[in-house]
Amino acid sequence: MSKTTVYSVRVEFGDCDPAGIVWFPNFFRWIDAASRDFFVQCGVPPWRATEQSWGVIGTPLVDTHSRFLLTASYDDMLQIHTSIVEWRAKSFVQRYRVMRAHEVIMECDEVRIFAGRRTDPPGAIRALPIPLQIRELCEQP
Amino acid sequence: MSKTTVYSVRVEFGDCDPAGIVWFPNFFRWIDAASRDFFVQCGVPPWRATEQSWGVIGTPLVDTHSRFLLTASYDDMLQIHTSIVEWRAKSFVQRYRVMRAHEVIMECDEVRIFAGRRTDPPGAIRALPIPLQIRELCEQP
Amino acid sequence: MSKTTVYSVRVEFGDCDPAGIVWFPNFFRWIDAASRDFFVQCGVPPWRATEQSWGVIGTPLVDTHSRFLLTASYDDMLQIHTSIVEWRAKSFVQRYRVMRAHEVIMECDEVRIFAGRRTDPPGAIRALPIPLQIRELCEQP
Amino acid sequence: MSKTTVYSVRVEFGDCDPAGIVWFPNFFRWIDAASRDFFVQCGVPPWRATEQSWGVIGTPLVDTHSRFLLTASYDDMLQIHTSIVEWRAKSFVQRYRVMRAHEVIMECDEVRIFAGRRTDPPGAIRALPIPLQIRELCEQP
Repeated sequence: MSKTTVYSVRVEFGDCDPAGIVWFPNFFRWIDAASRDFFVQCGVPPWRATEQSWGVIGTPLVDTHSRFLLTASYDDMLQIHTSIVEWRAKSFVQRYRVMRAHEVIMECDEVRIFAGRRTDPPGAIRALPIPLQIRELCEQP
Repeated sequence: MSKTTVYSVRVEFGDCDPAGIVWFPNFFRWIDAASRDFFVQCGVPPWRATEQSWGVIGTPLVDTHSRFLLTASYDDMLQIHTSIVEWRAKSFVQRYRVMRAHEVIMECDEVRIFAGRRTDPPGAIRALPIPLQIRELCEQP
Repeated sequence: MSKTTVYSVRVEFGDCDPAGIVWFPNFFRWIDAASRDFFVQCGVPPWRATEQSWGVIGTPLVDTHSRFLLTASYDDMLQIHTSIVEWRAKSFVQRYRVMRAHEVIMECDEVRIFAGRRTDPPGAIRALPIPLQIRELCEQP
Repeated sequence: MSKTTVYSVRVEFGDCDPAGIVWFPNFFRWIDAASRDFFVQCGVPPWRATEQSWGVIGTPLVDTHSRFLLTASYDDMLQIHTSIVEWRAKSFVQRYRVMRAHEVIMECDEVRIFAGRRTDPPGAIRALPIPLQIRELCEQP
């Protein structure tokens, strides 16, 4: 089982739309920050360092499934609980629960990969085998 | 069967992350624009007008499921093909295919509602029955 | 003299562009949050409450002048020091210094107004005289 | 005198805040796109190519001064007229007028540089002398 981390967000005025509620792409902005924060809290170096050591340039998305249960608005304090619920050969499933105190605002399961660069075509990426050192850092002791 | 509309996007430099590829929350920004553009192209008035006529303030998300098949980068021209594949009593399923010429970059199915305001608590919203006039505008003749 | 508040930001991967540095519109996102945070820390109610009491719907920008001195990248912790350096009849000058520890990353002076709604045309706004209660809350005791 | 280019934007629902008007950081998003579009229309290759040829990784901001004259909201079509009004040894002044038909919504003058990478510290950038080939492409014939 992986560790679970918590990433906090205060919703800002500019995160909300003319209906006065969070414009939903901002949830994905926060979830992406929570995804990386999970690795940082687990002790994984920043991607600019892993690119040098393991060739990992980041963890792009392959698939995402989200449910929006309650709306949120500015000044709400959100806590994003993040864990990894499945390791596959070349991908992993990261799970998020966005909470406002005891209410669940949104839930999300993502499939992500550890990406390395391909040389052809320029700019292309490929899924790397899960680096064992990263997986160990993410597991509960 | 609903109409299918096409919404075009040029990927900009600032839409891309340090890995040089589109930072994925931007896909949801474009998809949200394509969602509303679908209704505009079908002849549905803007939400500020439907709020007056039918109490509809927008179409917030309930659920989204997306697959990311290929990366994109700046100067790519994307076409988002949008349709409604299912009408339910108080929600609908909107489908998107993000294309770069003949390549599928991303696919997404969303469940959305037509939202009206609730009076209690302030700022809360509720799902309205699908307005018949809107559904008729979205269907193929 | 006004109070000075500090708003903290951690730069995220997605805030950076393909050059690996903060994409500058994100600085304005953070500055807008720091602007509102200044009023919140001074004890001014949220805009959804001031709209009811004083007709103030927010503090839109009239003019902004910014200097970018150093680049920033992800994992940087920024502190935005915010104050009001001038009160005019119907506008005010808000000043920001974005710091990374002892380094100045960016400086910005903005002219903003307290905006109320106009009835004609729909959606238009107008500058209100500075509400005395808000000004008093922002001054040093 | 430089060429003048026009970049078009349709304002989207999600670009607007709870006051129903464009949230101002989005103007800088569009202006950054218009800045790069100017070079693209003038025939300058994309930054990923200029990094190989001339070491230019982009044109980061040094200074920006903007005036906001009228508000805009969703469905507005904006045209951003862009030119370069001054060339200096290692920087240039790019000017923008954001129009909605015949109305000026916003004006902005920016000082930008052509940036190259420094080797120390990692990630740092430096201002390059204006590449003569780029300047010639931007001038009126």
